Amino acid sequence: MSAFVTALICPRCQLQHDPQTIQNLCVACQSPLLVEYDLDRLRTAVSKETISERTPTMWRYREFLPVGDPTQIVSLGEGFTPLLNISSITRAWGLTQVWLKDDGLNPTGSFKARGASCGISKAKEFGIRAVALPTAGNAGGAWACYGAAAGIRVHVAMPKDAPAINQLECRLYGADLQLVDGLISDAGKKIAQGIREHGWFDAATLKEPYRIEGKKTLGLEIAEQLGWQLPDAIVYPAGGGVGIIGIWRALKQLRAIGWVSGKLPRLIVVQAEGCAPLVKAFEEQQPESEFWPNARTFASGLRVPKALGDFLVLQAVRETGGTALAVSDADCARMMRLLAERAGIFAAPEGAATLAAVERLQEEGKIFSDERVVIINTGSALKYPEAMAEALAGQM
Amino acid sequence: MSAFVTALICPRCQLQHDPQTIQNLCVACQSPLLVEYDLDRLRTAVSKETISERTPTMWRYREFLPVGDPTQIVSLGEGFTPLLNISSITRAWGLTQVWLKDDGLNPTGSFKARGASCGISKAKEFGIRAVALPTAGNAGGAWACYGAAAGIRVHVAMPKDAPAINQLECRLYGADLQLVDGLISDAGKKIAQGIREHGWFDAATLKEPYRIEGKKTLGLEIAEQLGWQLPDAIVYPAGGGVGIIGIWRALKQLRAIGWVSGKLPRLIVVQAEGCAPLVKAFEEQQPESEFWPNARTFASGLRVPKALGDFLVLQAVRETGGTALAVSDADCARMMRLLAERAGIFAAPEGAATLAAVERLQEEGKIFSDERVVIINTGSALKYPEAMAEALAGQM
Repeated sequence: MSAFVTALICPRCQLQHDPQTIQNLCVACQSPLLVEYDLDRLRTAVSKETISERTPTMWRYREFLPVGDPTQIVSLGEGFTPLLNISSITRAWGLTQVWLKDDGLNPTGSFKARGASCGISKAKEFGIRAVALPTAGNAGGAWACYGAAAGIRVHVAMPKDAPAINQLECRLYGADLQLVDGLISDAGKKIAQGIREHGWFDAATLKEPYRIEGKKTLGLEIAEQLGWQLPDAIVYPAGGGVGIIGIWRALKQLRAIGWVSGKLPRLIVVQAEGCAPLVKAFEEQQPESEFWPNARTFASGLRVPKALGDFLVLQAVRETGGTALAVSDADCARMMRLLAERAGIFAAPEGAATLAAVERLQEEGKIFSDERVVIINTGSALKYPEAMAEALAGQM
Repeated sequence: MSAFVTALICPRCQLQHDPQTIQNLCVACQSPLLVEYDLDRLRTAVSKETISERTPTMWRYREFLPVGDPTQIVSLGEGFTPLLNISSITRAWGLTQVWLKDDGLNPTGSFKARGASCGISKAKEFGIRAVALPTAGNAGGAWACYGAAAGIRVHVAMPKDAPAINQLECRLYGADLQLVDGLISDAGKKIAQGIREHGWFDAATLKEPYRIEGKKTLGLEIAEQLGWQLPDAIVYPAGGGVGIIGIWRALKQLRAIGWVSGKLPRLIVVQAEGCAPLVKAFEEQQPESEFWPNARTFASGLRVPKALGDFLVLQAVRETGGTALAVSDADCARMMRLLAERAGIFAAPEGAATLAAVERLQEEGKIFSDERVVIINTGSALKYPEAMAEALAGQM
């Protein structure tokens, strides 16, 4: 077990769970569990200087991660992705300090590698032999990848109209891939059945506590790459929202140990107009989102009608003075072209959505010219050949 | 101009060319030119320790690279890719120290990003406004990408049956893409015509001196990542062979400044059975290769019937006591599956070819069990959806 993990806590009912045993959701209220660390001990055990000398992967922050035995870490070079200055694009809008965190340069071409690397490593430490998850595409590829590297069997269910590339990668990694005639929720039912019948470990989004810890490294890296200064805003494309919850927790942990100081950045959540449950809940000042019927957007990672961690995302946004907004597919497509043509960045439509959001927030006076802004590109456009073609056709 | 570049030298006729002006091939004999550095001054100007503290991209080795003004560097996070231990696979063949250099984790999903980053940066330093190149696919994408980031117009010609993904990426980066009814040699003719008519800079493989310098960083990284110890062998999939020439030069430069010592690794070149001009020339002890008619292999990067730098590749292999061998497409496909299923590595068919070569060389007694071997994966399978499907279908 990790030297620094103290407990798994339910953020809704505060019930503590034993981190030394395998856990999924809170046994009392079925909320996702969050990992707590002994930050006082962590502070004395590691320094910024020590971390800066380590291999540039997300595991350079291993004291902030839940895997205790380093030999259990399954790493393929994930994380420590580039933070690229894109002010050449945003200067036209009066913004001179904007960076894009390019998480397309991860194994499997998406930020899902962070969650899978951490989740699979922890599963390996627990001796788990088989994991299962429903997916819209990229998470399935990432877990299939890390499961293969770890020798853990991965059972994936995805809608049969999921991108061909995600089906191919799951099969090439040797995962058990089941195609479902329906939505990701139907894939979820298929997986739940397998879990009941075969005892697979449930690795669906936020149904195990460790995927989020991998995503947390996004926040740690942004802080380190900006010289341990916090930006004024971080703009994140939220489907399940695991990444923004992770970033929020990472920055709070860094502040608690004194590595960064001052106000946390405003955490800004972007969704698609065709599927914006978090935006609606934010605007209506609700603590949770409602299921969004007929979710539609070409940014497949944003096609999440109701996220299990919605209340945490909304809390992160509100606590930091952030906001939530929805952008159109046409604007995503336009920003995919702009990022490629002007900066050589091959962004997923979800990543492009964050740039569309920045443009709008500046217009609306919600981001100012001297502010330091980081946007997150969650994947490579290579994982989205269909979206690329649509962006080019200008059909959006 | 770079602080350390002293000359551009023709390796065939030894004629020196001025590095302060724009150069292509040797004006006397039409050979590729190689960049020479003042290694004595370089040795005193930078240390291993300084380099280890820099950002993990190939530009951490900037003293070994030809761009003098750091503001001209066009970087998207290329290089310093992971070196992954794959002994879990090779142990079955008695090999316990084998690493894969995963260059699929570059911008554009291929090692071509190294050459393009260096070549475009140097073109920018020279004030060049338009470059042109023929391509089988990945180089076109990489130059389109870095050209977009630099604000340099990129003219690309590729066979109209080149992978759809390479066409899409060139167009999304805003390059001028011309599809040619024919082979890459026909694309070359199209580009040559544009160069004559419009004065574009010729950026075809080895026709300008700087692409190879970017590839050189592969060798620098392998040395650093192995703790400045040289491996016993490096296995490289050779199409144009630029990478292996670069690795050879990098290691000789490192030895000249005393950062590494001992024998250079045996440089081993792998080609496809359906296109093996370098292997044939090596076996027949010829100094150059002959044009390979009807080149056929699903590893499109290896479909190069005659490389401009063939004599340099053969010299590198012979001088280091290496060898050259051809593998079948079926073996590449099998190794794509093996790397994915057993190590979570999503290798291009060219990268998979190197693992097939290692298996054979061990069987033939040309690699020994206690040797340290590095194989190069030149790209991500994400750039090869057709090859992925074929590998899965077992149709090879």
